[in-house]
Amino acid sequence: METPKGFFAGACHCGIRSEQSKDDVAILYSDTVCQVGAVYTKNRVKADPLLLDKEVLKNHEAQAIIVNSGNANACAPNGMINAKKEQAAAASLLNLPANQVLVASTGVIGVELPIDRIEKNIQSIKFEKNIELAAKAIMTTDTREKIVSLKTKIQGKEISLLGICKGSGMIHPNMGTMLAFILTDCTIEGNLLQKVLLENTTKTFNRVSVDGDTSTNDMCIVMANGQADNPMIADEGEDLNTFKKALHQVMEQLAIKIAKDGEGASRLITCTVKQASSEQQAEILAKSVVSSSLLKAAMFGHDANWGRILCAMGYSGAEFDPTLVDVVFSSSEGKIEVCLNGKGIEFSEEKATQILSQDEVFIFINLHSGDEQCTCWGCDLTYDYVKINGDYRS
Amino acid sequence: METPKGFFAGACHCGIRSEQSKDDVAILYSDTVCQVGAVYTKNRVKADPLLLDKEVLKNHEAQAIIVNSGNANACAPNGMINAKKEQAAAASLLNLPANQVLVASTGVIGVELPIDRIEKNIQSIKFEKNIELAAKAIMTTDTREKIVSLKTKIQGKEISLLGICKGSGMIHPNMGTMLAFILTDCTIEGNLLQKVLLENTTKTFNRVSVDGDTSTNDMCIVMANGQADNPMIADEGEDLNTFKKALHQVMEQLAIKIAKDGEGASRLITCTVKQASSEQQAEILAKSVVSSSLLKAAMFGHDANWGRILCAMGYSGAEFDPTLVDVVFSSSEGKIEVCLNGKGIEFSEEKATQILSQDEVFIFINLHSGDEQCTCWGCDLTYDYVKINGDYRS
Repeated sequence: METPKGFFAGACHCGIRSEQSKDDVAILYSDTVCQVGAVYTKNRVKADPLLLDKEVLKNHEAQAIIVNSGNANACAPNGMINAKKEQAAAASLLNLPANQVLVASTGVIGVELPIDRIEKNIQSIKFEKNIELAAKAIMTTDTREKIVSLKTKIQGKEISLLGICKGSGMIHPNMGTMLAFILTDCTIEGNLLQKVLLENTTKTFNRVSVDGDTSTNDMCIVMANGQADNPMIADEGEDLNTFKKALHQVMEQLAIKIAKDGEGASRLITCTVKQASSEQQAEILAKSVVSSSLLKAAMFGHDANWGRILCAMGYSGAEFDPTLVDVVFSSSEGKIEVCLNGKGIEFSEEKATQILSQDEVFIFINLHSGDEQCTCWGCDLTYDYVKINGDYRS
Repeated sequence: METPKGFFAGACHCGIRSEQSKDDVAILYSDTVCQVGAVYTKNRVKADPLLLDKEVLKNHEAQAIIVNSGNANACAPNGMINAKKEQAAAASLLNLPANQVLVASTGVIGVELPIDRIEKNIQSIKFEKNIELAAKAIMTTDTREKIVSLKTKIQGKEISLLGICKGSGMIHPNMGTMLAFILTDCTIEGNLLQKVLLENTTKTFNRVSVDGDTSTNDMCIVMANGQADNPMIADEGEDLNTFKKALHQVMEQLAIKIAKDGEGASRLITCTVKQASSEQQAEILAKSVVSSSLLKAAMFGHDANWGRILCAMGYSGAEFDPTLVDVVFSSSEGKIEVCLNGKGIEFSEEKATQILSQDEVFIFINLHSGDEQCTCWGCDLTYDYVKINGDYRS
């Protein structure tokens, strides 16, 4: 998949985590300076690379990102020193000032980053227009690389967006950390870019949950190098809306890929709360449902245990009238109503099992109390989640 | 284990859940009227038996409790009708007015309670001074009955307390529901009993987490029949403090038994946050640690992945300075420091694994920022949790 105009990517194996031959460092860069938007984890414990990036991005500008997997460089000895060395190594390779380079890390917490291996091995990186090697290099427990691309038009100019990510969520991400990097050749002012990124994050990455844990290293960065030659987007208006919508689509598709590839997950769960009195009410309820360990375990066992849905709604903190709630399960095998007006109704267990055995399962909840709605994404809780996380470090 | 003066217990098999021969209905009663305190789930979706009990307890008085396992009578057709029938059946058996009988249920949500089987089979119950049959009858996925007894003295009179419970927590309980019933012969006024129960609940059952899910049916009821003949406790003072302390011990021991027997759990995790600036800060942090799926999975794999502890503290919402945090793991095999001033330190993985392989593991977190502390309890996340909850209904 080709990168937008002016962007290049490369990856290499540095041996950060173990002796496996997998690439574990990627570099993304633009041959001209970019306007950059960034959102970071809300976790109070923040990894040093994040703190460094916040400094770099005070003026919304950067030209490259170096990302390593296998080590989070969080709570680690010499954390900031090593983050700066990683930044300097990439800057030197690309012949850029250090303050044009961002750093992102993902992996185990509390272990010193083997910076010497990174400094030495990145010399071998070959830069190409191909993003796949980079998307693979940032994976930890991910089972597949996650890439989304999209084209739109602004004032007659074709605009490309290309996003890659790894991990499992922004508000509720897995220890594997959620990192997302989106490259675009759109011409847009940095403050506006930051604003649309923030707004889109609340409706995309923040609506994904894998296991309720929020990492110390999460971030999403958007780099816009302006090489599409559209007139600078510097104000609210149609052009900004067009860009925002395209960015939203890329972010939503990345978010869904994260949920689908949640650690150990065997299926994607999409929960939509409809006819709510507000989008916020719908969001709190839908997020509580996709975050419930009990519901997630039931989905693994394709068990139509809808009582756990009402239970998770009940403890979500959102107000609603349980006696108005309808619940429907659906998938490519059809749909089945299991709860009407807050009470169980008779349904075919056989049909329910068939519906819930598919790779993508939808839960529709109707509150019958308004016109707003919200969709959140999650995955099932499986033996493999426990296995992966029972011994992640070894 | 003998019940306090004037209390009797009995149980029988009604076949509520399936054809297994396990007892599934228990009745606890006192031969004189009791002052009663009760706390209920904070889940917005409340089972009908809870709503009925709230009515009964408006005057803090009752004389008996009927409890069934196998069916939660929540979101179920004819829920309130069947709860009242269950109450009436027990009242008739005991020759009491219906408004002296409380009802509690635990089990699957949304399925109509087979009330006819209960009405018919409870006729065979034999009442004894022995609580064990009742403690067994209220179990669902519990692997062992949970009973705690304690004696204290008030004004020279011996006071007995006896508590039984099932399930897994009050704020974060398992769908199996947490039910606790505590019987005492203490003489105490109902409003005061309610007050000490509430205060003790926040420091005992509310500090246990199994999986973050809060049931529709949780409750804790204390019945005091006054047969110990101590002078009525009707005011604040030494007698109330003595009783409150004894009740606290019973509740804390029951809470710990719940954590230890969490669904699929292979070990008890006790997390103490020390030198905090407030008890509330310490509680939020400790509860976040014992609730983290990632930390729980690491404990299952006896992996000293302390980064997940700092991570869980970081997203807890409590303020603290990560650079002051020390973390120590301990068990019957000794103790090991793994994090000092928020950074990883070198430690023997072999010794850590040995320490974490025991049935009871302690996590000590020192914030170095005050004199307050709090302890919370949880368990590890295992394959069996997923197995049990992947197909709970069949």
